[in-house]
Amino acid sequence: MFSEQTYQDRRAVLQSRVTNGILLFLGNIENPVNFEHNPYYFRQDSTYLYYFGIQEPKIAAVIDIDENKTIVFGNELSIDDIVWMGRQETLKEKSLKSGVQETLPYAELSQYLLKAQTSGRKVHYLPPYQSSNKILLADLLGIKIGELRPSVEMIRAIVKQRSVKEPQEIVQIEQAVNVSNEMHLLAMRIARPGVKEYEIANAIQYLAANKECQMSYPPIVTINGGILHNHYRLNMLKEGDLFLNDSGAETAMGYAGDLTRTFPVNNTFTTKQKEMYEVVLNAFNNAQNMLKPGIRFKDIHLKASRFLVEGLIDLGLMKGDPDEAVKNHAHTLFFQCGLGHMMGLDVHDMEDLGEQYIGYTEEEPKDTQTFGLKSLRLGKELKSGFVVTVEPGIYMIPELIDIWQSENKNAAFINYDKVNEYRNFGGIRIEDDFMITDEGYRLLGNGLIKTVEEIENYRTEHSA
Amino acid sequence: MFSEQTYQDRRAVLQSRVTNGILLFLGNIENPVNFEHNPYYFRQDSTYLYYFGIQEPKIAAVIDIDENKTIVFGNELSIDDIVWMGRQETLKEKSLKSGVQETLPYAELSQYLLKAQTSGRKVHYLPPYQSSNKILLADLLGIKIGELRPSVEMIRAIVKQRSVKEPQEIVQIEQAVNVSNEMHLLAMRIARPGVKEYEIANAIQYLAANKECQMSYPPIVTINGGILHNHYRLNMLKEGDLFLNDSGAETAMGYAGDLTRTFPVNNTFTTKQKEMYEVVLNAFNNAQNMLKPGIRFKDIHLKASRFLVEGLIDLGLMKGDPDEAVKNHAHTLFFQCGLGHMMGLDVHDMEDLGEQYIGYTEEEPKDTQTFGLKSLRLGKELKSGFVVTVEPGIYMIPELIDIWQSENKNAAFINYDKVNEYRNFGGIRIEDDFMITDEGYRLLGNGLIKTVEEIENYRTEHSA
Repeated sequence: MFSEQTYQDRRAVLQSRVTNGILLFLGNIENPVNFEHNPYYFRQDSTYLYYFGIQEPKIAAVIDIDENKTIVFGNELSIDDIVWMGRQETLKEKSLKSGVQETLPYAELSQYLLKAQTSGRKVHYLPPYQSSNKILLADLLGIKIGELRPSVEMIRAIVKQRSVKEPQEIVQIEQAVNVSNEMHLLAMRIARPGVKEYEIANAIQYLAANKECQMSYPPIVTINGGILHNHYRLNMLKEGDLFLNDSGAETAMGYAGDLTRTFPVNNTFTTKQKEMYEVVLNAFNNAQNMLKPGIRFKDIHLKASRFLVEGLIDLGLMKGDPDEAVKNHAHTLFFQCGLGHMMGLDVHDMEDLGEQYIGYTEEEPKDTQTFGLKSLRLGKELKSGFVVTVEPGIYMIPELIDIWQSENKNAAFINYDKVNEYRNFGGIRIEDDFMITDEGYRLLGNGLIKTVEEIENYRTEHSA
Repeated sequence: MFSEQTYQDRRAVLQSRVTNGILLFLGNIENPVNFEHNPYYFRQDSTYLYYFGIQEPKIAAVIDIDENKTIVFGNELSIDDIVWMGRQETLKEKSLKSGVQETLPYAELSQYLLKAQTSGRKVHYLPPYQSSNKILLADLLGIKIGELRPSVEMIRAIVKQRSVKEPQEIVQIEQAVNVSNEMHLLAMRIARPGVKEYEIANAIQYLAANKECQMSYPPIVTINGGILHNHYRLNMLKEGDLFLNDSGAETAMGYAGDLTRTFPVNNTFTTKQKEMYEVVLNAFNNAQNMLKPGIRFKDIHLKASRFLVEGLIDLGLMKGDPDEAVKNHAHTLFFQCGLGHMMGLDVHDMEDLGEQYIGYTEEEPKDTQTFGLKSLRLGKELKSGFVVTVEPGIYMIPELIDIWQSENKNAAFINYDKVNEYRNFGGIRIEDDFMITDEGYRLLGNGLIKTVEEIENYRTEHSA
């Protein structure tokens, strides 16, 4: 946990930004795997962590703005619990560590909210993502799940606050990124022909676990990097394959790292692989250099896309005017997704609160229709203190190529004959994590090798 | 998956044992960790696995007894899905592998059930344990979650069938047990003074993962074995500690292993540790030898308890007549829990369906009041084909000792002075997995060392 003062200050800021009513915070539960008492590992809700820091299942809290008080709701261990689970710090003690003096039994939360609602006060709550909290919220408020209406005022206030990271949060994120760096170097040492994808996933997870970290998301460790959401891990690495590793650690306090590297299963890139890699790396470097307060991330995304297009024109896969190509979204045959996202207590930071609120503004809402842009999680202007990922890529998706070609889509910008020579090429992504500073940006963590030369040298050095 | 015929046969048996109506099966979903698209690893519902074998989130199925047909409900991948996730086996193909010809879109399930209910037919369903399925079931049936009434007829028929394991299931369980054996040997090799509990948990999990296994439950790896539900893992192992490892693997098909070994962090047991260990081992061996069809597991539990009492009398912690001591539940100061449980697709097999139905009968229901017996998951008569764990233990729980002593509870059988000498002793449990055969029992898996001599020799052999 951070200091008591940290949590008090955070709550004070939040409280000052919401006009009135009660702010309700629900912690997560231990989710059952195959029966109630066989749970997945516990992960506290990130907003709860941010304002209260207590890592305990089945607790809640309110900040009562009208009455200017904060209460943690939860149950102390019974003597029966102590017999089975041993003596532990009490909820009271834990709450004091986040500066909350008052705790009440969980069962009293319902009464508290009912009373407030009866006297016409507003109860603000966030969109529940775990089903247990959907049920709980509906019960607490005496309405149906379908009638839940999360508080936009509360969401906006929280997003505003959590988006700008405190120095101590940056320290945590850098810890996560540095463990992630080690995970990626380990993968580069062990990825060889004959190794299975899951063996690499297991090894990096083991490394992280021994540093008291979880995975911040299910790792993508694959020889089919062209498949964007790929969690199949039974393939064996073969000579000539490209290997894509998108994985990151999460610290015990909940902060995420998120890195991607792509490298050849052989020690060296083939010419084709190297050419394509350089195209992505060039887009990456240019995108990185654009990071600064005041620039819209959507504009960086589009400029990075233009760099990809230029590279693909050089390689003969695209043609025509690069600006026109990007304007017509022709690059989305190769770069179907977004350039990056916010990162913090969640790998897609605050995504549970709604992408529109995190990545966009009322004036410039998200484009939810256009292929490519609809997958861009972050579009708005960057501010000092934001933490973002930059992750351009080129993905050859045979099914998508076939659809576009059959429609002769963007034929003015795409050389389908050449593209088909690459249809089984796979995918390349390069991803790092950055903090936006007053001057521009700062790479988080100690840095991870990424040029062709660096990767080839490292792989050659560590080959068996 | 097993053969098509396997699933057809299982469904035919089930269908023949339920009089009429529709049997509804809900698969599990990918449960969110901290936002919707960041899920825990997927684990299919065990009953769904048993009757359909399809490992896919968000699918359902019905066996329509009245109309004698079986339908799998789920959505095929859209072209959008294929672009993001790659080509995969279709739901149709997967369903055919479990002998189901008919598949329908998920959205039609609601209509199907509504129509059946409107025409007065009964929809049988099981108790949901994941909150998402609570919400879904209530929606599908047009009732409130609190109004859900699982079908006892369906539960009983499933329990009857799943309790008796097929030979091919035994093969799976033995695979799980053998991986578990290796996990335990690894722990015995690496557990040394200075090592952290979580490092051992991580190492055994890594071993299992590389054999394509999950943990069948959150491992208990602790120097505080006296705490029964202990998932704290930050302690460092020290000279003189006892180390308790309760962990098991789950195969890719979902079958569980569940083993416990307790050993000294030093290579050799102290006299006190050895004496206590021998008491538990003696109870274990005697319990094991009682396993056979026709005997009530509750009776084995009570007899094992008697062996524990005899040993504790020899050591001076208990006194008086052993039979009287057990009758008065005096042993529950040391052995607070049950001797074992069913095991199969769940480590506590079918526990989601209700302990009363799994472990007890209508004629002899579970004792839910008496300390000790209320924690015995299995009480009923054993049958050939059952798979059970046997896991006696002695646990010194300071809080419990203090309560009992302050009440002078069972003072005729307990030497509190002597007990207090052991109050920080910790806990010892020994657990193996057995199949009940026509002749008696068979230990599952290749066997894992368990005598004092075996453990001391193995530890000494592998000390650094």
